[in-house]
Amino acid sequence: MTTRYRFGCDLSYEVKVPTFFVFNVEAARIENHHDLQEKLVISPDYERRVHIVPDTQTRYVAINAEPGPLTLRYEAEASLEVHREAPEGIGETPLHQLPLDVLPYLLPSRYVSSDRLADFAQKEFGHLDRGFARVTAICNWVYDNIDYRRGSSNEVTTADESLLLRAGVCRDFSHIAIAFCRALDIPARFVSAYAFGLVPPDFHAVFEAYLDGRWWLFDATRQARLDGLVRIGVGRDAAEIAFASPFGEMEPGPVKVFIERADGKAEAGERPSEAIATDGVAPPPTA
Amino acid sequence: MTTRYRFGCDLSYEVKVPTFFVFNVEAARIENHHDLQEKLVISPDYERRVHIVPDTQTRYVAINAEPGPLTLRYEAEASLEVHREAPEGIGETPLHQLPLDVLPYLLPSRYVSSDRLADFAQKEFGHLDRGFARVTAICNWVYDNIDYRRGSSNEVTTADESLLLRAGVCRDFSHIAIAFCRALDIPARFVSAYAFGLVPPDFHAVFEAYLDGRWWLFDATRQARLDGLVRIGVGRDAAEIAFASPFGEMEPGPVKVFIERADGKAEAGERPSEAIATDGVAPPPTA
Amino acid sequence: MTTRYRFGCDLSYEVKVPTFFVFNVEAARIENHHDLQEKLVISPDYERRVHIVPDTQTRYVAINAEPGPLTLRYEAEASLEVHREAPEGIGETPLHQLPLDVLPYLLPSRYVSSDRLADFAQKEFGHLDRGFARVTAICNWVYDNIDYRRGSSNEVTTADESLLLRAGVCRDFSHIAIAFCRALDIPARFVSAYAFGLVPPDFHAVFEAYLDGRWWLFDATRQARLDGLVRIGVGRDAAEIAFASPFGEMEPGPVKVFIERADGKAEAGERPSEAIATDGVAPPPTA
Amino acid sequence: MTTRYRFGCDLSYEVKVPTFFVFNVEAARIENHHDLQEKLVISPDYERRVHIVPDTQTRYVAINAEPGPLTLRYEAEASLEVHREAPEGIGETPLHQLPLDVLPYLLPSRYVSSDRLADFAQKEFGHLDRGFARVTAICNWVYDNIDYRRGSSNEVTTADESLLLRAGVCRDFSHIAIAFCRALDIPARFVSAYAFGLVPPDFHAVFEAYLDGRWWLFDATRQARLDGLVRIGVGRDAAEIAFASPFGEMEPGPVKVFIERADGKAEAGERPSEAIATDGVAPPPTA
Repeated sequence: MTTRYRFGCDLSYEVKVPTFFVFNVEAARIENHHDLQEKLVISPDYERRVHIVPDTQTRYVAINAEPGPLTLRYEAEASLEVHREAPEGIGETPLHQLPLDVLPYLLPSRYVSSDRLADFAQKEFGHLDRGFARVTAICNWVYDNIDYRRGSSNEVTTADESLLLRAGVCRDFSHIAIAFCRALDIPARFVSAYAFGLVPPDFHAVFEAYLDGRWWLFDATRQARLDGLVRIGVGRDAAEIAFASPFGEMEPGPVKVFIERADGKAEAGERPSEAIATDGVAPPPTA
Repeated sequence: MTTRYRFGCDLSYEVKVPTFFVFNVEAARIENHHDLQEKLVISPDYERRVHIVPDTQTRYVAINAEPGPLTLRYEAEASLEVHREAPEGIGETPLHQLPLDVLPYLLPSRYVSSDRLADFAQKEFGHLDRGFARVTAICNWVYDNIDYRRGSSNEVTTADESLLLRAGVCRDFSHIAIAFCRALDIPARFVSAYAFGLVPPDFHAVFEAYLDGRWWLFDATRQARLDGLVRIGVGRDAAEIAFASPFGEMEPGPVKVFIERADGKAEAGERPSEAIATDGVAPPPTA
Repeated sequence: MTTRYRFGCDLSYEVKVPTFFVFNVEAARIENHHDLQEKLVISPDYERRVHIVPDTQTRYVAINAEPGPLTLRYEAEASLEVHREAPEGIGETPLHQLPLDVLPYLLPSRYVSSDRLADFAQKEFGHLDRGFARVTAICNWVYDNIDYRRGSSNEVTTADESLLLRAGVCRDFSHIAIAFCRALDIPARFVSAYAFGLVPPDFHAVFEAYLDGRWWLFDATRQARLDGLVRIGVGRDAAEIAFASPFGEMEPGPVKVFIERADGKAEAGERPSEAIATDGVAPPPTA
Repeated sequence: MTTRYRFGCDLSYEVKVPTFFVFNVEAARIENHHDLQEKLVISPDYERRVHIVPDTQTRYVAINAEPGPLTLRYEAEASLEVHREAPEGIGETPLHQLPLDVLPYLLPSRYVSSDRLADFAQKEFGHLDRGFARVTAICNWVYDNIDYRRGSSNEVTTADESLLLRAGVCRDFSHIAIAFCRALDIPARFVSAYAFGLVPPDFHAVFEAYLDGRWWLFDATRQARLDGLVRIGVGRDAAEIAFASPFGEMEPGPVKVFIERADGKAEAGERPSEAIATDGVAPPPTA
């Protein structure tokens, strides 16, 4: 059973000098996004180059913009298939059973200083039973110990700094939780998404941990339903999947993000208590 | 009532080039150290210069050592007068009632990054009732959350770094606790001491917080009896009161520190549950 | 020969909750400030407490402000006596000849991370001839390598961070230069001042290095005349001598700072090429 | 024309608990390594898993070791084909012409804090003519300003920290240079190699910058010949291509690394002044 969503975003810029933009706003082209229909309008209609990361089907579109106004509108629809499972049965995958292409998600990355937080993670979570519940415990710790505060971080804030500040936004909550996972030898990665029910609407950042052979979604902010996330990009941390990376000079306008059920219903019922995964095998990329 | 202690230390160095040494190993010349009798033997017998900080009677002795072996032996006796009080009645001093010469102990210092830990301190301790019990809560938090681990820090480690590492030694425990106090507008300072009952014997680092009009001793490591501390130096942090500061090149030998009761008795009875202060008014320095 | 200056400042605040303020805006009460006449008007006229640091005659005034508007106006006149000397003859004081009360200015402090910059300083300046010219070389290096850029730092920026950013304001220029001095065993300290000829007028930050038995003024920003500085505070770094330290909540208004020659003349002639000192022996504080 | 090399390494460990090892010591399987013949003996002969990164043909081999002694011996031969070009004609590739799969090498990574060094890089290199010579200028700057000093860094040292310390080893020299490149919008990546002529023999770290459509080799340490490098791994920084990543507990023994010409000749003649590239198109991986 799937739920169909309509989602997208509006971005605008006043470009000052010729500026190279890389955008990552389109839904990943994965099997779990059934019947993805979409339209990406960039105006002026600059020549586009597209890059798709094979493993995760994260899509980048690059343009070279001239000075003047620039707008991007993305509108899409997809039927999201969610895999649900009882969390109790989900264990941690022993290191020697991890697929080797998952290993990079054990490494520290720019904003995920897991190499400096090894003792911290051991001290808080080392004694817990291994498995899904340990990652849940990490999320609970982050939720309980870090304040969600707009403006408390910027685009170069690291997990270390957020931990000392005891505050952050969704990006930072994810970085801290990912750092703890990696420090405990649990592969973890950063996921950006259109998040149904998020108030106010915005690009959301959550994370995935690799447990028992697949990637499971987690949200240490508790702001979104895990079964209402249409994923955009997957990366080691926020550095890799910014929704817009401008190289040049520009003035950004307001960012508008939207997602709603195609049947117009509001969010219904309880947040799911099951473990949620949406990392289905990727279809062959379309030309 | 006082207890008489014998205490001191042995230091040795192989000096490689002419080296300027500043030592801070002598007991502070305060009223609470009654009948202080002492002998400081430095060999070779270099010319000494002495500096005493008026406020705290912290004493520095400086020599200029030539290449070759250098030894220092300090032997002393003093009767320690301890002020005891029920903690319940000890409140925090409102800022506008603080003596102005106490204000520097509200400022961040090199290893006490209280300016970066303001939100951390508020989040953990901001809601607690003000007073002695709040500083006790800080000590308990540090004790519960930081591992005492030899070798986990060095002489330039900051409170920030110790917090992320979740480990440290007495120096670091004190730096973290001082940082939290200052972040909460409680003046706090670093104290080095001969600590009766410390195992193994070593120079110890504790701290003082200014509450209700005087300085009270705290030890977040719980390793020493607060009523068995003969204080050496008082400073903003460890930078100010290193037991030895060599400017040059030398190879240090082993450090030996000792303190025992003059009556030969071992430590008797329970650690005190009262608040402890030993910051008595300083006598005129002796010539 | 002296030059008489009129100087002062206007500060204003909208105080939100009862707030404890410590101000450090009055000229230091030193001999070099001859015939100091001054008026400090704080409105409302709250009870004041005054603290004077004996060594440097830095003066703090503290008040407890109620919610509502608060203004401070300081107006003063003094005849500044400047000590001038040919730089060539000014050597570095060997460590073992330093007065011991100068030693704290060799230590790292919160914003002066000289302990981490020892190798950096040695590599850039270790090979230079010792003396006044070496500190001048440090100032030249800072001037050549760091951009003066408003807004590039804030009140918790350290010398380390400024060095990596390659930008700062007068506060940061001084912190970096002080760090290099201390790393080279040259005592150095932070000085705030009314700076004749500074454009735009503002509180200025310079520094002093201890050479050949006294404190000499340096300004790595090259923005002010060293012989036109009326000093306010002296400290280890900016933490100690903020012009205003509010503990509470308030909205600051604009800061106005002024200094002019009492005879109305504009700045005349060349900046001095001599070494400049204004750290004259302090007179007894007036009641 | 190619030169044939024999190269390899010996590693040994005393494994304390079951430990998962990932090794990256085999030469990359690229076209430029003609007729690669090799033998990898791990003893005991644990089951191996192999992962090859498609883009760079970096090869990882993973084993699960039981407690006891563990040794790895790698012996190989290959004929290295080097592409040479006059540096003068090699310009920087404009951002909008970069292949999109090169973009990750513009991002900051764990030990390459290019996001914090943007102004530093602009200030030192922003005014230089764009092209190969600018990357050479970066290497020269690093060589002139950073001391090569064994023991000055460890496996978690960042480019920031090395810059302040003004010291590092080959790993750190590469991190700093990569950071400057990325900060100037020049893609750059970390390369580990067997380095002919390196004294003493060891694993070496150099870097590649992407200029004019391909990856060119650079060595800011000037310790190795760029035309005598047999590459092992390519990554964003040292985190990705450690020669050995043990997850568990073990005592490492000595590391022995060797490389010599198959014809037995010593290094002959001058280091090349041409630009050097060895990033040939990868052959299909062999089974």
